[in-house]
Amino acid sequence: METKKLNHVQRVILRLFLTGSYENVKRAIVKLKTAEIVEIVSELRHADQMKFLSLLFSVRRAGEVLSELPEELASTLLSEFPDEKIGQMLLRIPPDDAVDLLSYVEENRREKVLSTLSEPDRFSLEKLIIFDEDTAGGLMTTEYIAIRDTMTVEEAVKTIRTKYPELDVYYIYVVDDRGHLVGTLPLNKLVLAEGDAIVKNIHVPDPICISPETPQEEVARIVSNFDLLALPVVDDDHKLLGVVTFDDVIDVVEEEATEDIYLLANLNTEERVFTPVIKSVRLRIGWLFINLLAAMVAAFTVSLFSHTIEQYVALAILMPIVANMGGNAGIQSLTVMVRGLALGELDFSAGWKATLKEVSVGLINGLMNGLIMGIITYFWSRNLILAIVMFFAMVATLIVAGFFGALVPIVLKWLKKDPALGSSIFVTMAADVGGFFIFLGLATILLNLYNVS
Amino acid sequence: METKKLNHVQRVILRLFLTGSYENVKRAIVKLKTAEIVEIVSELRHADQMKFLSLLFSVRRAGEVLSELPEELASTLLSEFPDEKIGQMLLRIPPDDAVDLLSYVEENRREKVLSTLSEPDRFSLEKLIIFDEDTAGGLMTTEYIAIRDTMTVEEAVKTIRTKYPELDVYYIYVVDDRGHLVGTLPLNKLVLAEGDAIVKNIHVPDPICISPETPQEEVARIVSNFDLLALPVVDDDHKLLGVVTFDDVIDVVEEEATEDIYLLANLNTEERVFTPVIKSVRLRIGWLFINLLAAMVAAFTVSLFSHTIEQYVALAILMPIVANMGGNAGIQSLTVMVRGLALGELDFSAGWKATLKEVSVGLINGLMNGLIMGIITYFWSRNLILAIVMFFAMVATLIVAGFFGALVPIVLKWLKKDPALGSSIFVTMAADVGGFFIFLGLATILLNLYNVS
Repeated sequence: METKKLNHVQRVILRLFLTGSYENVKRAIVKLKTAEIVEIVSELRHADQMKFLSLLFSVRRAGEVLSELPEELASTLLSEFPDEKIGQMLLRIPPDDAVDLLSYVEENRREKVLSTLSEPDRFSLEKLIIFDEDTAGGLMTTEYIAIRDTMTVEEAVKTIRTKYPELDVYYIYVVDDRGHLVGTLPLNKLVLAEGDAIVKNIHVPDPICISPETPQEEVARIVSNFDLLALPVVDDDHKLLGVVTFDDVIDVVEEEATEDIYLLANLNTEERVFTPVIKSVRLRIGWLFINLLAAMVAAFTVSLFSHTIEQYVALAILMPIVANMGGNAGIQSLTVMVRGLALGELDFSAGWKATLKEVSVGLINGLMNGLIMGIITYFWSRNLILAIVMFFAMVATLIVAGFFGALVPIVLKWLKKDPALGSSIFVTMAADVGGFFIFLGLATILLNLYNVS
Repeated sequence: METKKLNHVQRVILRLFLTGSYENVKRAIVKLKTAEIVEIVSELRHADQMKFLSLLFSVRRAGEVLSELPEELASTLLSEFPDEKIGQMLLRIPPDDAVDLLSYVEENRREKVLSTLSEPDRFSLEKLIIFDEDTAGGLMTTEYIAIRDTMTVEEAVKTIRTKYPELDVYYIYVVDDRGHLVGTLPLNKLVLAEGDAIVKNIHVPDPICISPETPQEEVARIVSNFDLLALPVVDDDHKLLGVVTFDDVIDVVEEEATEDIYLLANLNTEERVFTPVIKSVRLRIGWLFINLLAAMVAAFTVSLFSHTIEQYVALAILMPIVANMGGNAGIQSLTVMVRGLALGELDFSAGWKATLKEVSVGLINGLMNGLIMGIITYFWSRNLILAIVMFFAMVATLIVAGFFGALVPIVLKWLKKDPALGSSIFVTMAADVGGFFIFLGLATILLNLYNVS
């Protein structure tokens, strides 16, 4: 997203802060929205960020701001807060954000933070912590409103006004006498309904609902396809456990996209720009080792033709071009396929059609690039055989690249793996091996046959 | 997202359809939600998809389903509908979806489709078409509810019940006597308020609003940061033009992620899995030509050392390993940076720190991979000098790769370009040129110095 500019009020507060007028900052900051405070924090140097947070009047505000900051930064800042203060924050922000915030606290400190809470508060948080953070259970909040199906609209409104005076939800859930979820009552229906209407006659029955184990990408798909504001989470007995709201879904969509991008670049999804060096090394080195193996396979292919290279050193100069082009074209095919699989486009048609398409694109791109490179090779080397070898090698390599670029993600998906997992290493290797083999193999045959140098 | 399974009702309808019980399908399909129909369509072969759509009872339903299908498929199916039918669809679905649907119609046919509409209907659609589809104007719907700030809550509810009996929005907009937007009235406030309260006393004043020219990534950032359900679009005079809703924002987030992924793989954002071959070639060939130039620069580097390669053919075998590892490590650094820039993580800290980090990671990964490759090289070639060359070349190349991987996106952003634009070609070239130069250069110096072969 683009560079964000602070608005007038934010700039004034920033200036007050930088000139040390902390009392004025305290007074002015109350009017800002959490996201606006986060924007100011992003403009400060690290030493100032902590100071700025300490000016926030309420613990709730500080907790809200912290839970919106990037994970690494939030962790660092939280390490400077006392246990009791963090405990207070956990209570004052929505439960799903509290679980996130707690996960930013160092692992061996979490128990201590939780021990500052009362038994029931602690219990209600721990109920949420048990769920995997990549599932509906990990995303859901337990702050929702449920009413009985037999109430009248008037009773429902009265209940909401008394029990939830700070209502900020848009769906109300309807349960039967055994607490089972039977419907959803969107606020618009409530506004339109007559006061004496019975809830069960105006609610939307049989709402789409999910279990706490539903993976987050599935949650995102449902919310996005059905344009829902919130999705209820129920247990096996159809009792309401919590609600996943659309703002969490936007985060999930971003997270899933990051996962796709990262896997294509052979990165671990945990890594961020400011992950400490040693952790980054640990997260990347495995993929680099695998890539090293793949590169050795490509090098082995070259070694098969060392005799020809000794005779014609021009081959050593030209062969990286073939491999490089193959790699690039292969990654193009691969990326279109991986994203198509992620966005569900391939649900609408068959994998072999897509493979055929990528091979065709490889053929045509190969013909064009091969022609250009053949001509350049001829004028550089004045060796027609070498130029012809280059032309055919380019065509064949780009076909191979397109083929594997399309096939690898389809096969991975069929094996129930992520279609992007390690695929770029494999596709690059296939393009390298194919490219070297075709280029050097053709050269060995043709150059020796016509014996020109 | 994962493979989706049809639910029971969907499976029954699919079976009825495939066995030709079209009348039963027609009757059952009425109960399905649009997204559920889309899921069934995705399971059908192309020839059947059109037939299935024709069973949809209402034009509105068909329009809704079409506007949710992937663009290529929707275009193909739309080409088989008569102009009048498409015109009818446009009128019966929300205006923002209608604009999208119209964009799926072949360009030279759009005029004809529009001419089937009445003058006012046509005009209201054309008002939306003028906006760039990647801006707030292109995303917004003109279906919103605005009320006067001087109304009482009771009057407001009465107005809504009479004028918008099918209300399905969650924010109501509040305007003053000149039609200027002055506030937002979320439905929850309306539910909680007493009947005689005045709207302007309970609304949320000075709502965040945007102009129709606001780029879509900015819209997504605001909605996501402020957790809004909808964002009003106003003209220079602060008059309400339309509203961008959260469901469009989820699509934008996906689109922006696709853009990041695509730019890193040197793809044009228009491309999809089933883009026709010739169009795909046209969209990819430019990047391949640029890559060809970059590969030639790398090959030129190799050519500087052709004399050394002639003496030691082992160099030709080993050099792709150095280049390949450099390329892979560079893409890792680049991807972390590009995603970090996109998600705003780099707003919180300086670019030089990130560059330093990537260089450090490159150093450590280089030491480890260099050590392994040095040992392998020694046992393969029994040439200690060559093994030492390999070690140092690997270390230096991975440092160069980390440096350019971090720097290129920062520079592109500073130049106000997309940080991913063409960056992978540049980073790979830098790693290749650096790797070849260091590896072959060191080899030329050391191998000739000690004159071992």
